[in-house]
Amino acid sequence: MNKRPVIIDTDPGIDDALAIAIALFSDELDVRLITTVAGNVSLKNVTNNTLKLLNFFEKDIPVAVGAAQPLIEPLVDASNVHGASGMEGFDFPEPKTDLLLKDHAVNAMRKVIMESEEPVTLVPIAPMTNIALLLAMYPEVKKNIREIVMMGGSAGRGNKGVMSEFNVATDPEAAKIVFDSGLPIVMAGLDVGWSALVYPQDSEKMLDMGKTGQMAYYLFKRYRGGSFNTGLKMYDSCAMAYLLCPEMFKVEETFVDIELNGEMTRGCTVVDLKGYLKKAPNAKVCTAIDGEKFREWFLESVSRCI
Amino acid sequence: MNKRPVIIDTDPGIDDALAIAIALFSDELDVRLITTVAGNVSLKNVTNNTLKLLNFFEKDIPVAVGAAQPLIEPLVDASNVHGASGMEGFDFPEPKTDLLLKDHAVNAMRKVIMESEEPVTLVPIAPMTNIALLLAMYPEVKKNIREIVMMGGSAGRGNKGVMSEFNVATDPEAAKIVFDSGLPIVMAGLDVGWSALVYPQDSEKMLDMGKTGQMAYYLFKRYRGGSFNTGLKMYDSCAMAYLLCPEMFKVEETFVDIELNGEMTRGCTVVDLKGYLKKAPNAKVCTAIDGEKFREWFLESVSRCI
Amino acid sequence: MNKRPVIIDTDPGIDDALAIAIALFSDELDVRLITTVAGNVSLKNVTNNTLKLLNFFEKDIPVAVGAAQPLIEPLVDASNVHGASGMEGFDFPEPKTDLLLKDHAVNAMRKVIMESEEPVTLVPIAPMTNIALLLAMYPEVKKNIREIVMMGGSAGRGNKGVMSEFNVATDPEAAKIVFDSGLPIVMAGLDVGWSALVYPQDSEKMLDMGKTGQMAYYLFKRYRGGSFNTGLKMYDSCAMAYLLCPEMFKVEETFVDIELNGEMTRGCTVVDLKGYLKKAPNAKVCTAIDGEKFREWFLESVSRCI
Amino acid sequence: MNKRPVIIDTDPGIDDALAIAIALFSDELDVRLITTVAGNVSLKNVTNNTLKLLNFFEKDIPVAVGAAQPLIEPLVDASNVHGASGMEGFDFPEPKTDLLLKDHAVNAMRKVIMESEEPVTLVPIAPMTNIALLLAMYPEVKKNIREIVMMGGSAGRGNKGVMSEFNVATDPEAAKIVFDSGLPIVMAGLDVGWSALVYPQDSEKMLDMGKTGQMAYYLFKRYRGGSFNTGLKMYDSCAMAYLLCPEMFKVEETFVDIELNGEMTRGCTVVDLKGYLKKAPNAKVCTAIDGEKFREWFLESVSRCI
Repeated sequence: MNKRPVIIDTDPGIDDALAIAIALFSDELDVRLITTVAGNVSLKNVTNNTLKLLNFFEKDIPVAVGAAQPLIEPLVDASNVHGASGMEGFDFPEPKTDLLLKDHAVNAMRKVIMESEEPVTLVPIAPMTNIALLLAMYPEVKKNIREIVMMGGSAGRGNKGVMSEFNVATDPEAAKIVFDSGLPIVMAGLDVGWSALVYPQDSEKMLDMGKTGQMAYYLFKRYRGGSFNTGLKMYDSCAMAYLLCPEMFKVEETFVDIELNGEMTRGCTVVDLKGYLKKAPNAKVCTAIDGEKFREWFLESVSRCI
Repeated sequence: MNKRPVIIDTDPGIDDALAIAIALFSDELDVRLITTVAGNVSLKNVTNNTLKLLNFFEKDIPVAVGAAQPLIEPLVDASNVHGASGMEGFDFPEPKTDLLLKDHAVNAMRKVIMESEEPVTLVPIAPMTNIALLLAMYPEVKKNIREIVMMGGSAGRGNKGVMSEFNVATDPEAAKIVFDSGLPIVMAGLDVGWSALVYPQDSEKMLDMGKTGQMAYYLFKRYRGGSFNTGLKMYDSCAMAYLLCPEMFKVEETFVDIELNGEMTRGCTVVDLKGYLKKAPNAKVCTAIDGEKFREWFLESVSRCI
Repeated sequence: MNKRPVIIDTDPGIDDALAIAIALFSDELDVRLITTVAGNVSLKNVTNNTLKLLNFFEKDIPVAVGAAQPLIEPLVDASNVHGASGMEGFDFPEPKTDLLLKDHAVNAMRKVIMESEEPVTLVPIAPMTNIALLLAMYPEVKKNIREIVMMGGSAGRGNKGVMSEFNVATDPEAAKIVFDSGLPIVMAGLDVGWSALVYPQDSEKMLDMGKTGQMAYYLFKRYRGGSFNTGLKMYDSCAMAYLLCPEMFKVEETFVDIELNGEMTRGCTVVDLKGYLKKAPNAKVCTAIDGEKFREWFLESVSRCI
Repeated sequence: MNKRPVIIDTDPGIDDALAIAIALFSDELDVRLITTVAGNVSLKNVTNNTLKLLNFFEKDIPVAVGAAQPLIEPLVDASNVHGASGMEGFDFPEPKTDLLLKDHAVNAMRKVIMESEEPVTLVPIAPMTNIALLLAMYPEVKKNIREIVMMGGSAGRGNKGVMSEFNVATDPEAAKIVFDSGLPIVMAGLDVGWSALVYPQDSEKMLDMGKTGQMAYYLFKRYRGGSFNTGLKMYDSCAMAYLLCPEMFKVEETFVDIELNGEMTRGCTVVDLKGYLKKAPNAKVCTAIDGEKFREWFLESVSRCI
């Protein structure tokens, strides 16, 4: 079987680190490019973190640097959750800087997409500034994109604002451009992320799973200031889970739009499950996940890593 | 024990009819006034329905007519749910027109409140246009209002728009005036209404409970086009349940505001359970209900009616 | 000739004082009621000022107190322009409190309108909270309202916000209710107010015109901190000028709506002179004034007062 | 004297054609690059028109193609004004396609800016999608941009919406990115464009000025359906006029922001001349122009062309 070509757009970030690990060591995904974007922490830090992760994982994937800030919003990062560096809690090796491309992430994505023999899947697990710029600059890429499988959004309440999820609310205009693009979109957001939990006993098991498992163990100890016991939310891994094991999700095809104008609801993903807006579906929304299956899959996936 | 003085502001409406019945035959509530407002159906129809209900219940409660439309929004009613008249499915007696006051609902409310020896509780189970007008015209009433216990709003998704509940979304400006008023507010919205269910077997039991139970049985058969089997939502009775049996609710004190500006989220009740907005609480929000307890209470309450 | 029955809704305010004087001593207007509303200064102060003015003018016009604040917005007054009391600079006699009605302004307006043998003209020269409440409570008054001639709005730039005029921006929802009412509306706003100027030499002349002229002279000396030389804008008198001498105005029938949602343009009167919005006209907008004619008319009008 | 290096970002468009002519034949400007963007008509047409113009003007300026649509808004063009092709009324030579760069406009701009020995001036006379993408992708260009001199915006009323100018309202998010950029900005908008008029007698004179003048004569005859007599507005030439003859303008340093949220005022340039918003100035706004001087300058400028 051919591996499925993917580009990961990311802002590591602790849960990004695990999602990237799972993708890199999967038999089914061919990670052609990793692009970085400001989000959980600054562009400089997320790029640095990406290069450290690739050194740690011993993988030579090209990395391209993207947008330093959202299109319109000033960046409000999540260093309160991920620590100042974005990946506090583990002593990583040096960034593997020779993986850095000179091209901007947007140009690098375009090149990979246009040169790919088969359509490429984009996996944004970060604010979608880079993807939006790609679509705005190079609409011709659409014909060789298979789908966009994102971590982002929520059909209900939020985690950055009352009704808005972090990745979408950090750059609502970018998210709007993506949802308006006409491309096939899969949205794995808080509706599944809040049930994609890893518990202390899982973490203990990971300690025996090789160096990736150990890394996870120590990162998780620090993540969210160590609020370990009630389960850690593996948001970004949900996007990989959808790619690798979609049967654990309940999915609904529906119309999704981004509220740009609300005084308190700006960045809300308006997921029209009941058809109030009378628009044609533009996305598959993961509305539920089998949490137990996710946990097993997650542990099994980490165990495949070095 | 003194009965608690209340004013019910309503737009019957099938679930209003049951809520009013429960209030009228409760030992604990003293319904001093019923005011009507455009909502589920037109002002003319909801007033007519109220007067029919009072004839049917054989209760001489004064009725005052209020606002014929929301403050800013044009009225979009819910006749698709309640039928053209608002109470389809049962053959009511004539409206008892001698109960009609000449005063506008707002003036009538003011009079009842100002003349009451003890603070009055307002129970809006309809769009809050009348209450907003009352507070805008006569801020002095605030000192003799005990609290406002409303059916309306949602901490999550909506039932009129994707993220907005019917009573609030029908007149968002009115709801904003109420939530901004500084008065003690209890919000019993979709978060509990969606679990305040009555099933076919309950309805069968009501058939033997006297004429109110019979009325309920026949109304329920028509309600929502007869979508009977999955449980009928007794939204408005939740407000009465809170007054009479608050222990069946989980309640959180929090800040609630109304989104007026969203392109798709206008009318959303922004219930800031996590404190993103850093505002002082202005409402008690019913976030969960014991559905089984509600059902028992509801049946028991209906059985007390004539 | 019958005098034309009018109700003045006001928040004196220095330019209100002159507008009221002109109306009271006109041969053509029959001022049946003056209602007060929070605006230039607090409701208490504007009511007090109105009662002082009536004592000073020796006129027994009934006065009714209206809304203490805008519908949604908190009140941001204009005491920086009019002084703390709202009419700084002249030593008025005591308020004539026996003119105060017990009725709320809204109820008083309704009574005057419904009892009038001929349709009444409303002249709001203040935020339109009272008028909006009147229309929301008592839509039946519409059939006996001849027109609403307001001072408010702007076809271009603003004087409270960058693009919003004081009376409209102080209560944008109220203004929207008025413009949406279907009633004949005349908008005399900044487009004419900025050219309705009185100069120091005019003021000098007024000093010899009796006690009203003297009052004007001293108020003008203090108005806007004494920025006397470049001409004082007689905003509110424009509404009276339209009633009494419409030929000094250029008027265009057009569609006007109120922007409620703009982050920086909330309260903007969107005056669609070019038909971009493709809506039927709902107002006559005074787009220009003959400044010289206005000045003559203004002086002549003041000279008719006591 | 060194010629000043400029990049023109354009969507010809009849008034663009004249502005480009003036720039190309000026002694003071060194047009290093022309970039095209969807606006007056489609990207394909504006690019085609640009290449025709360069053939006609016999100038070998590199041309790079930019964005095919605004960031968020669907494109609503101005073919009603400029004709279907965008330059109706004159028989141009073929497009000089060998001037087309392979690079996207954004990459081409970056290259010119980064390689320039002295800071480059950007002259957008079109929706600012390209400039916004440039700033979002390559913030490092800011250090070698001298200023942005745009045709766009309005301190008062609009020409696309009631309160919004065409170039800004066509892509409000792009305009916001530009105004938020921190770069020195000169806004020459409708406040001057509406007074930058060319009359029939001027047009007659141009007929004798060589082939550019003749082209202008025939284009003007068709422009806006031939509404020739009241003066044609040379919007885009105002940007060139500012660069070449700034003394004909009245300029105010002020804060400008773009309203993104208004229901009817979206795309309004909020020009805070009075300081209501209490923000530091971010732009020089041309608030008035000496129309007579403009006319002379315009004719003189056209006479310098071939």
